Amino acid sequence: QDVRGAGVPIGILPAGPRDAITDVAGVCVGHVTLEQGRDIHTGVTAILPHGGNLWQDKVPAGFFVANGFGKFAGSTQIEELGEIETPILLTNTLSVPEAMAASVEWTLDQPGNEEVRTVNAVVGETNDGFLNDIRGRHVTIADARRAIETAGEGPVAEGAVGAGTGTVAFGWKGGIGTASRELPLSLGGWTVGVLVQVNYGGVLSVAGTPVGQELGQYLYKDKLPEKSADGSVVIVIATDAPLSDRNLRRLAERAFVGVARTGSAFSNGSGDYAVAFSTAMDVRRTAPRRKEQAVYSELSNDRMTPLFQAVAEASEESVYNALFAAHDVAGHRGTIRALPAAQVRGLVRKRARLQN
Amino acid sequence: QDVRGAGVPIGILPAGPRDAITDVAGVCVGHVTLEQGRDIHTGVTAILPHGGNLWQDKVPAGFFVANGFGKFAGSTQIEELGEIETPILLTNTLSVPEAMAASVEWTLDQPGNEEVRTVNAVVGETNDGFLNDIRGRHVTIADARRAIETAGEGPVAEGAVGAGTGTVAFGWKGGIGTASRELPLSLGGWTVGVLVQVNYGGVLSVAGTPVGQELGQYLYKDKLPEKSADGSVVIVIATDAPLSDRNLRRLAERAFVGVARTGSAFSNGSGDYAVAFSTAMDVRRTAPRRKEQAVYSELSNDRMTPLFQAVAEASEESVYNALFAAHDVAGHRGTIRALPAAQVRGLVRKRARLQN
Amino acid sequence: QDVRGAGVPIGILPAGPRDAITDVAGVCVGHVTLEQGRDIHTGVTAILPHGGNLWQDKVPAGFFVANGFGKFAGSTQIEELGEIETPILLTNTLSVPEAMAASVEWTLDQPGNEEVRTVNAVVGETNDGFLNDIRGRHVTIADARRAIETAGEGPVAEGAVGAGTGTVAFGWKGGIGTASRELPLSLGGWTVGVLVQVNYGGVLSVAGTPVGQELGQYLYKDKLPEKSADGSVVIVIATDAPLSDRNLRRLAERAFVGVARTGSAFSNGSGDYAVAFSTAMDVRRTAPRRKEQAVYSELSNDRMTPLFQAVAEASEESVYNALFAAHDVAGHRGTIRALPAAQVRGLVRKRARLQN
Amino acid sequence: QDVRGAGVPIGILPAGPRDAITDVAGVCVGHVTLEQGRDIHTGVTAILPHGGNLWQDKVPAGFFVANGFGKFAGSTQIEELGEIETPILLTNTLSVPEAMAASVEWTLDQPGNEEVRTVNAVVGETNDGFLNDIRGRHVTIADARRAIETAGEGPVAEGAVGAGTGTVAFGWKGGIGTASRELPLSLGGWTVGVLVQVNYGGVLSVAGTPVGQELGQYLYKDKLPEKSADGSVVIVIATDAPLSDRNLRRLAERAFVGVARTGSAFSNGSGDYAVAFSTAMDVRRTAPRRKEQAVYSELSNDRMTPLFQAVAEASEESVYNALFAAHDVAGHRGTIRALPAAQVRGLVRKRARLQN
Repeated sequence: QDVRGAGVPIGILPAGPRDAITDVAGVCVGHVTLEQGRDIHTGVTAILPHGGNLWQDKVPAGFFVANGFGKFAGSTQIEELGEIETPILLTNTLSVPEAMAASVEWTLDQPGNEEVRTVNAVVGETNDGFLNDIRGRHVTIADARRAIETAGEGPVAEGAVGAGTGTVAFGWKGGIGTASRELPLSLGGWTVGVLVQVNYGGVLSVAGTPVGQELGQYLYKDKLPEKSADGSVVIVIATDAPLSDRNLRRLAERAFVGVARTGSAFSNGSGDYAVAFSTAMDVRRTAPRRKEQAVYSELSNDRMTPLFQAVAEASEESVYNALFAAHDVAGHRGTIRALPAAQVRGLVRKRARLQN
Repeated sequence: QDVRGAGVPIGILPAGPRDAITDVAGVCVGHVTLEQGRDIHTGVTAILPHGGNLWQDKVPAGFFVANGFGKFAGSTQIEELGEIETPILLTNTLSVPEAMAASVEWTLDQPGNEEVRTVNAVVGETNDGFLNDIRGRHVTIADARRAIETAGEGPVAEGAVGAGTGTVAFGWKGGIGTASRELPLSLGGWTVGVLVQVNYGGVLSVAGTPVGQELGQYLYKDKLPEKSADGSVVIVIATDAPLSDRNLRRLAERAFVGVARTGSAFSNGSGDYAVAFSTAMDVRRTAPRRKEQAVYSELSNDRMTPLFQAVAEASEESVYNALFAAHDVAGHRGTIRALPAAQVRGLVRKRARLQN
Repeated sequence: QDVRGAGVPIGILPAGPRDAITDVAGVCVGHVTLEQGRDIHTGVTAILPHGGNLWQDKVPAGFFVANGFGKFAGSTQIEELGEIETPILLTNTLSVPEAMAASVEWTLDQPGNEEVRTVNAVVGETNDGFLNDIRGRHVTIADARRAIETAGEGPVAEGAVGAGTGTVAFGWKGGIGTASRELPLSLGGWTVGVLVQVNYGGVLSVAGTPVGQELGQYLYKDKLPEKSADGSVVIVIATDAPLSDRNLRRLAERAFVGVARTGSAFSNGSGDYAVAFSTAMDVRRTAPRRKEQAVYSELSNDRMTPLFQAVAEASEESVYNALFAAHDVAGHRGTIRALPAAQVRGLVRKRARLQN
Repeated sequence: QDVRGAGVPIGILPAGPRDAITDVAGVCVGHVTLEQGRDIHTGVTAILPHGGNLWQDKVPAGFFVANGFGKFAGSTQIEELGEIETPILLTNTLSVPEAMAASVEWTLDQPGNEEVRTVNAVVGETNDGFLNDIRGRHVTIADARRAIETAGEGPVAEGAVGAGTGTVAFGWKGGIGTASRELPLSLGGWTVGVLVQVNYGGVLSVAGTPVGQELGQYLYKDKLPEKSADGSVVIVIATDAPLSDRNLRRLAERAFVGVARTGSAFSNGSGDYAVAFSTAMDVRRTAPRRKEQAVYSELSNDRMTPLFQAVAEASEESVYNALFAAHDVAGHRGTIRALPAAQVRGLVRKRARLQN
């Protein structure tokens, strides 16, 4: 649970074995990365709550908007019914239609879905229009579908991959990051996994170290156009805790605690969304359960606090992981450098040593 | 302001000259109707808040969800920023991606939008999967774009056209309906126009007459599968009153008063959404105004009640207009008859005579 | 399930034996009516979800705001935790503090609550400031507590009693009304009970009959000050169906379908709220269940539509019952007449005969 | 804009002259502190948006719930109408009724309000039930009214005063804190002021320094009962920027960025609320403006980001100010020590030096 390679823990809870969203058993992740010349730097990331028929065996889910300047698709049905029935896809702002189409078509094509006539595609996005020729709308339905079809359990690639290929954060190269936390058995023993698409700005702080100020690159420095704080973040949260949709919404909200700690104040132009789901079989909405009265096992409100702590920590760390894993990209409208990882690790470690 | 041809007024306020959403000056409507053999009965309807550059000169807007089992796109940005920057498109459930793509591409292509890299497409839908082979996803990006490009002021076609081509309501043929109300000068003199995509069910009442029961066709009659109440309604509201986005949200909510009066109880499977915008120049968010502090003229909370009355009446009447204008359709999975208009007019008139 | 005494059914579902909220087993209602001279016409109505220790054995609950110009207390905790832990009290706008204090003190005093240090009082109100000297704040903590302590199962008094003592509706005397619906076994066999505090206006329609227009008394008639549409309605809904808090919120929303059908368009000055709870033991949040993971039996989304139909019908009828049960009141600022019940029954019956 | 006395800046923006909410011209603050023996440690804090007739000259306002386990009164009307018409009062959880009563009575008694019959009292609370005999309900209506009547511009007392008299935070003594930020003219030149009632927990971080861990006192340390993270925070935000109610809601939301940075993850038992208002005459809802169409000058969405940064910084600092200003209190159920201020200042300074 440290900033990759810095040896400085983020928070008080331990990470899972992979320190990734896939520490929640059954969750699958797939990336499709599109890079071509200077102009095309974009892609799609797919997160599948489980490897079965998602439409037939829906998962309870919660959704939270921290700042709604974005095009997140599928939110009203998540809120009304408290469930997700498709993969969650991430891509660039102007390619949401293609990602939705891929999700719909893939769902219609699954065995057992021959009579399905309604599909709630869930798609998040951030704007990669600096490094990527976003107006060209280069993501195809086939690209997005490939992200779903190649998704798997196991390690998750981070940095400038998939939907993070062209993103920018705090003036450095952004990307995809992931992390997890495992609660001790005395607090329930549950796992929380997070995956973020990082594309926002502000005044970067890493594990409490004011990195943005130390490196002289932050919002309003030299009266930089505040547009540099815009961009957005989308957060996907998985847990094996048996939560109601209401408590999943509360969990989604707490993911922004982590984002706040990295130095964001949720600028006007940022589209900041989180979606959380539970993989627990106890709360899975299978076809038989959805027909009538059904029995669910549910964690009480009073047991939620450790999970809130876990998601805050995992979200914060996910952002750092995205930044540390990214590399320089020369793109459509200029070049964006990766965070100087060694230097930042040094800054963070120097401060951390003081406390040990 | 009567049920077309029945001579029975809906409510207490007069309709505008066309009794259509286009009574609000500047609003344009376009339909693309797709019909082919028995299997394809679908389409697209486009509503443009004004005929200029919508992205540059945004309109304040409000959004309301009565039941979120639907795929309405673009809602979170309307809620966060209180504005709309694209045409509003209506289509079928599984063709939302194509409608979004059309909206994005059309917006990128407008003169003056060469540097635009973010577009919030607003798309509503209902499920026409009984009359239409919805799984075939027969609406193309070009179809949807044509609805935008052919939109115009003037009379609006109703019934089985555009996004209403394949819809069903109360077991009869649904469709597109429209109506308007004009406030007397003592109440502000404003116009409210409504357009609805009617695809829902329940126990049909027309102007207070229990038509569903009189004709023996309603929810739970003979233990009909309750699926017949599902389907959805999307409502688009225009007004020339200078309203804040908050009061536009309140206006959108009141549109469902009209829907409730037609016999809906917003069944579980219905996706029921309303979006309202103001065309007043006093509140238009032009590029210069969006840059800094700007002066707006705004109607106070205390002047809203007449507008709420107007939208309730216009929405109710719009639904009847859709039903009365529809015709029998033999489609993908069966035939749906139009409401027996002459008979229903007779029933409604008979009751109405009692009061005069 | 008819308008009391008119022989005209409201909707398609049968009422329970008492046609009252107390048809939901265990629900208790208490009224305290305060009348003194011309100036004091107010009171308190208490609804207890069950007769046990409400704080220890909480009930799942949902809350919905149709128009938030009101002072409903306790809503944010209902929304966050999905539960109610106190009686629901109704009173006048400026006496909410006394009702809250009564709820808090009564809760602290219950055996077993010796260590309780947090109480979420739930209080709704409407403004009876025409018939009642509302500025005098004549409701005491003791009055409100008496409403709780005298609450019982069984028949519920309607009209100008309790929190309905001084209310006005559509220009006639409003009050408290109640009704219920029982689903056939094929639709689940559940009971839905409703109690309303009626104090709003518009264009009165009774069972589809435009009574307001026929009697020449309605909003904007002779340019009446639109204030006459203001006033508010608070709706309390009980059911024995085992619902999640999310589905209880959806149920609460549907209560306004009934209100819309009576002729309200939710005017600017109206504070329109609904709160719904389930009495089912399967979903009761007992102290042991609240500590850890617990098993609940829950009705699925797909089984909600009949309950939505039931609450719409019961709410509509409750409003009529309040009006029909009320009597003339000479109060603080003038006299308000009861609805001319015989005449209205005649109008409604005359229309209804046409359809039989 | 530093942690009082530590010389370490919080954020990148300068504080106003008093570094208090009263840096926003016209805002008045009053405290009533109730201390008696060991058992009574509670009080009331009043914040008045301006010194005139608040009911007649309402201020636009926004409201945000981060975690709704609380009893905040008046929220639905703020949300519906976008305005505040009374002082904002803070007190303990079980004394909300008395604070509301005081607000209502004071409003009714103001000259010019002789015909006022509706008052939306706005009251926040946190639970001081460890140091204070909260079940005794020791705050009277007169106490709360005194907080309103003694409110003034100028310096604001911090720490264990007013509504902060009995609060606890991170296991140390909490209290009332305040801070402000002034934007440079290039970013608008506006002032944002914050006042917080601090009563929550987690893993305390001060200006990025993990103080909780360094001092060995934090959530889950030694499996402390997680109740120690509960308690709540209420945040009041004032600004002279001419904001719409929608943008004030967005501003209120960003206050929690600051809270997140102090080490909260918004635990289940915490009632976390923020309310923001604008004092700008350009947006004040005076009686004449509220009657008809009126002209307002409003800051655009695109100018909000600097204000978001300001409120995040001021909220974070306000929390530290509350903690640093508090003193040890021996109360009802035990003694709570103040944060060891000198030691913490040392820790913070030691880290800060590294970066300069």
